This record gives sequence, C-alpha cells and structure tokens, in this order.
Amino acid sequence: MRATASPQDIANVCAKIQSLGFRPHVMPGAERTAIGITGNHGPVPPAEFEDLPGVAEAIPVSKPYKLVSREVKPDNTVVDVAGCAVGGAELALCAGPCSVETREQILVSARAVKAAGAQLLRGGAYKPRTSPYAFQGLGEEGLRYLAEARAETGLGIVTEAIDVETFDLVEKYTDCIQIGARNMQNFSLLRRAGRSRKPVLLKRGMSNTLDEFLMAAEYILSEGNYQVILCERGVRTFADHTRNTLDLSVVPAVQRLSHLPIIVDPSHGTGKRDKVHPMALAAVAAGASGLIVEVHPNPDRALSDGYQSLYPSQFEVLADDCRAISDLLRKRKASADLLGRVILPVAGI
Amino acid sequence: MRATASPQDIANVCAKIQSLGFRPHVMPGAERTAIGITGNHGPVPPAEFEDLPGVAEAIPVSKPYKLVSREVKPDNTVVDVAGCAVGGAELALCAGPCSVETREQILVSARAVKAAGAQLLRGGAYKPRTSPYAFQGLGEEGLRYLAEARAETGLGIVTEAIDVETFDLVEKYTDCIQIGARNMQNFSLLRRAGRSRKPVLLKRGMSNTLDEFLMAAEYILSEGNYQVILCERGVRTFADHTRNTLDLSVVPAVQRLSHLPIIVDPSHGTGKRDKVHPMALAAVAAGASGLIVEVHPNPDRALSDGYQSLYPSQFEVLADDCRAISDLLRKRKASADLLGRVILPVAGI
Amino acid sequence: MRATASPQDIANVCAKIQSLGFRPHVMPGAERTAIGITGNHGPVPPAEFEDLPGVAEAIPVSKPYKLVSREVKPDNTVVDVAGCAVGGAELALCAGPCSVETREQILVSARAVKAAGAQLLRGGAYKPRTSPYAFQGLGEEGLRYLAEARAETGLGIVTEAIDVETFDLVEKYTDCIQIGARNMQNFSLLRRAGRSRKPVLLKRGMSNTLDEFLMAAEYILSEGNYQVILCERGVRTFADHTRNTLDLSVVPAVQRLSHLPIIVDPSHGTGKRDKVHPMALAAVAAGASGLIVEVHPNPDRALSDGYQSLYPSQFEVLADDCRAISDLLRKRKASADLLGRVILPVAGI
Amino acid sequence: MRATASPQDIANVCAKIQSLGFRPHVMPGAERTAIGITGNHGPVPPAEFEDLPGVAEAIPVSKPYKLVSREVKPDNTVVDVAGCAVGGAELALCAGPCSVETREQILVSARAVKAAGAQLLRGGAYKPRTSPYAFQGLGEEGLRYLAEARAETGLGIVTEAIDVETFDLVEKYTDCIQIGARNMQNFSLLRRAGRSRKPVLLKRGMSNTLDEFLMAAEYILSEGNYQVILCERGVRTFADHTRNTLDLSVVPAVQRLSHLPIIVDPSHGTGKRDKVHPMALAAVAAGASGLIVEVHPNPDRALSDGYQSLYPSQFEVLADDCRAISDLLRKRKASADLLGRVILPVAGI
Repeated sequence: MRATASPQDIANVCAKIQSLGFRPHVMPGAERTAIGITGNHGPVPPAEFEDLPGVAEAIPVSKPYKLVSREVKPDNTVVDVAGCAVGGAELALCAGPCSVETREQILVSARAVKAAGAQLLRGGAYKPRTSPYAFQGLGEEGLRYLAEARAETGLGIVTEAIDVETFDLVEKYTDCIQIGARNMQNFSLLRRAGRSRKPVLLKRGMSNTLDEFLMAAEYILSEGNYQVILCERGVRTFADHTRNTLDLSVVPAVQRLSHLPIIVDPSHGTGKRDKVHPMALAAVAAGASGLIVEVHPNPDRALSDGYQSLYPSQFEVLADDCRAISDLLRKRKASADLLGRVILPVAGI
Repeated sequence: MRATASPQDIANVCAKIQSLGFRPHVMPGAERTAIGITGNHGPVPPAEFEDLPGVAEAIPVSKPYKLVSREVKPDNTVVDVAGCAVGGAELALCAGPCSVETREQILVSARAVKAAGAQLLRGGAYKPRTSPYAFQGLGEEGLRYLAEARAETGLGIVTEAIDVETFDLVEKYTDCIQIGARNMQNFSLLRRAGRSRKPVLLKRGMSNTLDEFLMAAEYILSEGNYQVILCERGVRTFADHTRNTLDLSVVPAVQRLSHLPIIVDPSHGTGKRDKVHPMALAAVAAGASGLIVEVHPNPDRALSDGYQSLYPSQFEVLADDCRAISDLLRKRKASADLLGRVILPVAGI
Repeated sequence: MRATASPQDIANVCAKIQSLGFRPHVMPGAERTAIGITGNHGPVPPAEFEDLPGVAEAIPVSKPYKLVSREVKPDNTVVDVAGCAVGGAELALCAGPCSVETREQILVSARAVKAAGAQLLRGGAYKPRTSPYAFQGLGEEGLRYLAEARAETGLGIVTEAIDVETFDLVEKYTDCIQIGARNMQNFSLLRRAGRSRKPVLLKRGMSNTLDEFLMAAEYILSEGNYQVILCERGVRTFADHTRNTLDLSVVPAVQRLSHLPIIVDPSHGTGKRDKVHPMALAAVAAGASGLIVEVHPNPDRALSDGYQSLYPSQFEVLADDCRAISDLLRKRKASADLLGRVILPVAGI
Repeated sequence: MRATASPQDIANVCAKIQSLGFRPHVMPGAERTAIGITGNHGPVPPAEFEDLPGVAEAIPVSKPYKLVSREVKPDNTVVDVAGCAVGGAELALCAGPCSVETREQILVSARAVKAAGAQLLRGGAYKPRTSPYAFQGLGEEGLRYLAEARAETGLGIVTEAIDVETFDLVEKYTDCIQIGARNMQNFSLLRRAGRSRKPVLLKRGMSNTLDEFLMAAEYILSEGNYQVILCERGVRTFADHTRNTLDLSVVPAVQRLSHLPIIVDPSHGTGKRDKVHPMALAAVAAGASGLIVEVHPNPDRALSDGYQSLYPSQFEVLADDCRAISDLLRKRKASADLLGRVILPVAGI
C-alpha cells in the first residue's frame, strides 16, 4: 500500500481478497503497510488490485515462502516482547538457566541477568529431553516461578512450548513462546503458535536449510501471527570440537531474504562454556539482533546443560562486550549511510 | 526370567518392582520373558531379585536406553502387523503411494502391490509438508479409503500420525502407526504412541545418531508399547546425487544393540526412482527385516514425491529380486550356523 | 565411430582433431570406439567431423567431465588388472592387510585371500598417516614383499602411491596404482597417474561430491590413461556408529553417468569389523563391480587399522556370500533382459 | 626452560635429547624457550632432564600433537611475515585476487589493498582446480608479478604451493607459503613445507576435525619449521545458503589447545560477496589474529572466484570496520586483565 493509504483503503483491499476466496494478511511496517495474499492456487492477476485506491504495487512472490519474504514487506519487522524491541536499534539480551529448577534458582538468576542488562529472562518449564528418564521440567510450577521473577525484576519471559497439549498454559504465563530446534518442523505446533497473540521465538532445526527455516516461520505467519523472532542455535556436522557448529552466516542470509529479526544462541551453538563468549561477540558482529544465553547461578549443580551455562559474572562481561560492539557498529553504519559509499570496478581490468 | 518361569513368578517380580516404587515392563520373547525396570534413579541391587523364584539373572543396563537394549532382551522382537511378522524369517514388504489421493488411486495401488507380494500397504492421510500451502492429505477420508483397500486386498495398513490431536483417528483405522522422521524427537507424540496398543513404525530423523534413534524408541517402550519397528530412511549430508544419504550400516548397528526389528525406506532414502531398486537390494543384503517403498500407479501425476515413486511393474521386479536375495541369505546362514565356524588368528603374526 | 570404422578412419579423425589444435582421446569399447576431444575452449562444430568416413555421430558433452562420461563412451569400461577384469561379469575381490608389515605377514595374507578366491592383493607400502609419528610403511621393502607374494600366488597387486616422488617405484612394482581418499584432489598426483600405463584405483575423498569424484577421474583420463577404477570408501557425516558413512547410492549414480567401473571398500567405509560383512553384501547387491577388503592374519597385532580388518576365515565367508549374490543377480538380470520388461503408468490415475 | 636459561643450557638439553636417539625442537617464546622432543616411542622419564641446568619442567604431552600444543609452549607464537606480526597485537590483513591474472591486475590490486591498510598481498600463481580444463594459474610468470607488486608497495606476499615439484619456485618468490584446504593432508607437501625456512599458512581441509588440523600443522613443525599460521576457511555441511559453512568456533578452540596463530578466510568460507563483510567482522570478534580476503579490481571479469571477491571500495570499509572491532576488544581486554575478574558460583544453588 502507499504510505498515504487510509485504513479504509486497506479494508477495501482485504475485502477484495476475501471476495476472491483468498486470505489477506495485513502487516504494518514503519513506513507503509503490506498486505499478503495466501490461499491462491496459482498467480493472482496484479491488475485486480492495482487500480484500487491506496495500492502502490501488486508483487507476485517468486519464493516458496511469501509472508516472511522481503519481497512482500521490505521493512524490518521489530517484535515487541514485554517492552523489549527485538530487531530494533538496541541489542536484545535474553538470558537465564536452561531449566527452571527451584523458585530460589530462577529468582537469583533473574536478578543476576537483570543486573547485567538483559531485558529478557529464559528458562524451561517443559523440557524436550533425549531420554524419557531425564528431568522433564517443573511444568506449571516452573511457569509460576518465572512469572514471579518477572513481577520482581520487570524482565520479559521467554519459555518453550513443547506440544499443543501444554501450549495454553505456556501461552498464559509467558511473554514470548519458544519453539525448540527439535520442533522446528512440528507443523501442528507451528500452526498453534500461529494462532497465538504472543510473539514466537523459532529456533532453527539442527539440520535444516535456510529455506526450511523460513518455511517453518511461514507456517506461523500464515495463521495470522506476524510476531516471529528467528534464532540460530548451531547445526549438526562432522566437527567434534563443539557440540554443534554455529552457522553465523545464516544471520546475514536471513536478513537478505526476510524482514524477520534473527538472534543467536551461542550456548547451544557451541555446547562449551569457554566458547560462549567469543561466539556471542561474533554473532553481534555478524549483525544478529540479539542473543539468548544460558546463565546459571551454580552451573556445576544445574539439572541440565550445566557445562555450557555461564556464571553470572561471565555473563556480565559478555553483555558489556556485546553492547560495545553493537554500539560501535551502529555508529559506523550511521556514518557510512551518510557518506553514501559507491562501489565501482576498476575500468580495463 | 528362566525359560521355566511361571506367570505367577513373573507377577511376583512385577509386584516386587512396584513395591520399590519403580515400573516393571514385561517383554515376552521366543524362549524366555524379560522384565525391564524403569523409574529408578540410580542402580537397583541385583540381590533384591535374584533370589525370587523364576529369576535367571538381574542385569544392570549400562546404556542410556534400557528397554530397547539387547542387554535386557537378547531375543529378536518380532512385531505382528495384521498377520505380517516384521523381524521374522520372511522379508516384510510395505508399499504404496506417498499420499492417499483418491479412492481409485489407493485401490489400484493396493491391488498392484498385493499382486507383487507385498504384505502391507502404505499411504499418508495426514502429510507433514515443508510448506503450509502444499497438499496436506485427505485426513479421515484418506483413512477410510485405506480401510477399504484393506478390506478388499487383506493387506495390513501403515499410515502416519503427525500429531496428538489426530492420533486417535489414525489409531482407529490403521494396523501400524508410522512416526515420521521429522517427528522422531516429538516426545509428546512418542509418548502417545507408547500408550497405543497398535504397533509403531518409527523412522530415523534425518540427522539423528543411532543413540538418539534408540532413545526415541525407548520413549515408546517406556510407556508400555513394545511393538516398535525401526526404519532407516536416509540422513542429511553434503552429498547431492541423492536427496538423502541412505545409511545402511545402521541396520547391523541396530541389530547389535537392540532386539527391535529394522526395515529400510529406499524411496525417501534416495529420492530418485532409478536408485530405489539397487538400494532396496542392498538393504536386504545388509540384513534389513523389510522394506517400505513408494509405488504409485501414475508417478508423474502424484501429488507428492512422484519423482521417487516406482511404477507398479518396477515394484514387481524389485519385490522378486529382494525375496531372492533374502532367501539366498537365509539358506546360507542356516548352513553356516550348522557348520559353527570358528574364527582364529594366525599364530606368530 | 561406427562399428565398421577402420583403424585408418580413426587415425584420420585424430589427425583432424590435432590440426584444429585440440587433443584426441581414443577409447576402444566392446562394440565401437569413441574419440574424445579436449583442449577446446568452447563448442566444436559437429559438422567438422560428421562427414569424415567412419564417424557415426559428433556429440557435444554437456557435463563438466567429458572423457569419463557415458555421453562420450556408452559402453562400460572393463579394466584389466593382471588378468582380473574389473567391471566385467565376474565380481572382483581385492583383499589383504592395511599395511605391509613383514614378509611373513604379507605372504600368509596373500595365501589366505587367494584361497578364499580373491584375484587381487592389497597392502600399503607407503601409508598416509594423520600423525607424523605413526608407522609410515616399509617403502620399497614393502613393495618387494608384495612382488614376492604375487610371484608365489599369482595375485595381482594393488598398492598406494602417496606422492609424485615415490610414484615411479610404486609403478614399477604394482599392477594397479591406488590413489587414496586424502589425495583425491591432489591434482599433481592425478596428472602423474594419468601419464602411467598402469591401471589406477581412485578412491572417493571423504567429503567429495559425485561431480568432484568424476572430475578427479577426468584428470587421469585427460592425460591419456583410461584404465581407471573408482572406489567408494565412506564419507564423513555426523553419524558416529561407524567411522565413515558408506554411501552405496553412489554406485548406481556413477554407473548412470560414467562408463568407468566402481568398487566398494567396506572396511574403511565402516571402520568396524562386524559391519564389514553386511556392508560388503550390500555393496554387491547395489551393483558394485568388486570389493576391496582389509584382511589380516592377526588383526589384534596389526600396525594399522586392525579393528576393521577381517580374520582370514571371516573373509572366506564374505567372499562366498558375495559371489552367491553376484551370481544370483547376474542370472536374474539375464532373464529380465530376455523378457524385455515394459514400464507403463495406469491410465486415468 | 627457565626464563634465565642460557644458550649453553639449551644446547646441553638438545645434546642430551640427541644422545638418547630423539630429536630436539627449540621453540623460543616471548618469556622462555620450550624444547620439544619427538622420535620417542613411548614416554621419556622426566628425571632425565629435570636436573640439567636451566630446565624448569619436563612435561609429558598427552595429546597426539606435541609441538603445536600449548602444553609444550604456553606462550602464543607470533609469526613474522615480511614485517607483519601474525598473532601479535595488531590485526593482520591479507588481501588480493584469487588468481594472478595479469601484471596490471595484480599491481592495481596491490595498490588498492595497501591503501586500505592490508599488510599482505594474496594471489595464486598455481591454482588447484576441480576441472583439468579450468585456468590453472600463470606459474612462475605470476610469481614474478607478485614480486613486482611487493617491490612497489612493500606488501608481503602470500601464495600457494600445490606440489613438491613447484615448491622451490614458490618458496623463492613468496614471503609465506600457503598450503590449500585440499592439500591439508598431503603429507609429502607438509613435510616439504616443514623443511622450508619461510612461514607457512595452513588452511583447514573442508571436512577435517580440529585434531586432524593440528596434526597437519604438527607435520610441518616436526620437520623443524615452527612458523605456521592456521586458517579456517569453511567446512562442508548440508547447508546450502553459503558455499561452505564458516566454523568460527574453531578460532577459540585452536587458541585453547595450540600456541599457533589462527586467521580466517571469509571469502571461501562463505562463497558469496555479500556475506564476506559480516563474517569478517564476526571472525575478528571471535578473536582471529587476521583475515585473508579475496579482492579484485573487477570481480565480474575475474578468471576464478569472482562472485566471492570484494570490490576494492568494499574491502576498504571491511578493513576499517575490522580494525575498529579489533581495537575495541584489545582495549576492553586490557582493562579486564587489570581488574582481574573472579568467577564464583552462588552458594546454595
């Protein structure tokens, strides 16, 4: 739509789309509003729309993903999680333990990550575990502790929903619903997340391509929830010096193809405490909009993932260093944009 | 338990296990019955059980998986799917289209694969698709067509359950519930399958290790369903001449560690029609207990996976060739067992 | 060229190619001779050749590889190694220890594999080792022991050349020069092998695609040596139940694109003794023209790769079983060719 | 050796090592000199050395690599390439075209990367190419052009040696000998590089583990050349949004285990021009000691790798941004070291 399009213009276009038997998706941007169409089997003639008032352009999308594509919505999406703007100018920092273990543990964690400048608190109440005999999370009790930590610290909450059965409960307590890597192609769960009004943090599956990652997000958007944050957390390769291979190149690759923000999880992405700090810095330098980091008040006694969790004092340094890099790059980018650099080949070579 | 243990002996051991707060799992074998214990946090003293009548041995299991392990149950498990013994002496052949598309299509397919000697019919009524806009299956209508095909041909039915929501419906119609590769670590779905009384066909995830594969099966057994068939369907690698890399070495690897039968899917495992026949033969030669193969009466018009589906006449040749190899190897193995070969190094080298 | 083309016709075509500044490659087949052209930068007009006597067709090759392509030479290449026809009707079996360790060890090995029906003896005199401090092979002393084993048993010799420096020595003693997986893209070594008159066994690199594998063979053919045997020996993946993941689907994939024979190494391809037998059978069933297997008279005392070497008595069973499968498939294929099966879709579906 | 050890003390220890039939490796560090021992088959009793004058400690090395290990030499190695200290405080920037194509092209490139602040010029005179029919480099002519560029600009030269045959020529002209990824396990070439007196830049093979990478460096050091720079250039995975997956976590992993400096190649590591800048920044943030970047005056006309080469003006921005991050992190690290942060768990959690 044109920047000058009125709400009535937008409503008219949506009505037209519905009258053709398709589904309209209104996605407001900073400058103008995009309206995606899904449900069509084959191309829709642009002329049907371009004469309507307020329509700037009708663009057929050439990719398998539509609503997540920059072709549909050129402006970056900024996702608001309890007041933290993920994808905005400021670096978003989400931190906390792998699992909520006790009331005390999560409160101490929340205070520590808040003190270090995190805006969001992570912590699993429902844990997808490789073994049926491993600790599976505290369930609703854990969700209540998270809510208590939010009440005390003001941090927004990010916690995982592992199935449709327990989704309602998670949705009720959390500020942002995490979909884990193992569930990236659990399409029923994606659909349920798409019908939520809460933002969704979608982690890349451990052997999924970029196209599959974007298609998984498309499932959520296609149900009407456009508040999706993508997250790289390492892929599975032959390399054995880390638990997973953190594929930071997916950060600029996502940013080129999609308007959705992408953050990085250097904790699962490396699986080793001493690799978290350098890879967190690298993620910020590569342009990630934020980080999600495992921090535990006493990692050696953690019920899960202790070996990759930071001590609170380590997270403090990490947060400082990451913000310093983020600030530096934002300033440099601002002056570069002012200069308007031009790229030219050398003639005759 | 000893081969001579009475049902009362077994009941006594189970009662003892329950009295300690643990969970007993009775797994009858061809020669003797094994009883698994889960729910213990740490080792259970063998002496607690070895004095009970009928107990042969109490074996602490050293692997993360317990109930699927050969340490617990040395005899091969044979899973009965509508009269077809998967894991028994005869090769199990399951074939049919990727998706149930029409009543006519599934009936024609069923007759064709029956004529070629298949015992089981495959066909998806609920399809997990990478794109939210792709054909998602006929749902219960598809299940009814499958049931009709069974009624006409006598073939057992194998079809996929993709979520807990539609599980009851699938369970009602099918003879064997398939859990697809993308859901191999959908632990809620595995638990639901574990509470079913129908056999389960569990496909290996596209980047899961053998241990993760066996742990996924353990989820099903830990809920009380011991009728699990494992299935290799190709893993994701850098190689680009096939859609996935069929990892046949997992067949003998599973057989060494677990009592569960393993079959192979050469259709998804290669993603190319002309590779299905050679890889099906290879799977049988490697010792697989069966095959699951995509066959479509008119592959070029299939709604999904047509490029990897066999023509019925191709499947007929494949089935013949596979049975011939299976027969050959069974006969050779029988004579080898009679001879009782001895393996000795050459002294002094 | 036509089947009726005379040697003079062939010479004329070659002269014509040379007069244009290109390089002719004469590759005689069972029925007719192909002449490849390399050195051209861009397409060569077919009309330049199609009017010459004896020319059947001038085919522009659309693949990056030319001389290895079936487009250039539709007939299978059969490589003669000391009387063993690799790529012919009979299964080629090459076996022996990883390294030549002592005169006694290689002689005992040679007798054992000969007794089991192998036609070729393997054994490394120069070993590429990950560590500079590991046993690097006996060098020329090892080559002499191999020659002695050949003299006694009549087996052809296959041994590895690891660099241009020691190539002449290896070439002098061996019947077939092996290029190892780590050297698959050592282009200087490939060129040297291309200038040899001895057959070459080229192993696939552990993370090389099919195209790269064929291009490596193209290096050898482009220098004038058309006697190349390809060998699959496992690729590197995330899977950890075997040392490498044996990619048997490359066997039919090579056979579709190239006229060169392909064999399989189930010893390096699995890295575990108990997986060698099932994967050897699988390789034969997939259509491999032969096997190369590590056999050691006393694997526990081997200086390298003992854990994946078979005992001689195990190899005997393996060889018997593989020949039985090979015979079975050859017979079935012969009758199938007689029947001339037709593939048809079912109308209306 | 102690910091106070005299040259005579060092000579005495070496003589003692030689008298035992082993090989001494003297590696001077900033504070003290380490002496490695190789050639021993089994442990050497520490007591043999600890009583000699100047000896601080005799440490048995538990890793398969010895001379590259931090256990042997705790201080970082700084490699001097024509005055550029790789591994020192300042970021090392090496840039230039993939191949030397013409005199003009390399001179223009050299001036451009010099102007942007690079200290080293890259450019291949001998190119390992997948196809025998692709441009293979200018050979010695290319080396002469590189030397001319050095004479004019003062930049040090880094160029690849692809085989032992042409090694002498490369060694004569270059300041640093590059060993490419495909040759990382070309052990004869590594040995030849180990006998050179010029520094070596060793690239990680595309599917090699960290241990294999360090063992390849060990080959070079074991021959007496301790001036080795390691380079991460991407590994091969299933991911298809970049040509290779840049594994930045190997940077801190190398730094933990080895004293050798490690740099990163974001050009081959991504294979896409628009990913080079973000991944270069990420590499510096992860702690890399330098970068090697493809820059071409006119990428669209490059004879190789044009699609991943930067325009000179893009490299200028990259170099500025990378130095800014490097400076920032060095300053922050310096103040952190002053503060001497302490890591403590929270008691009782």
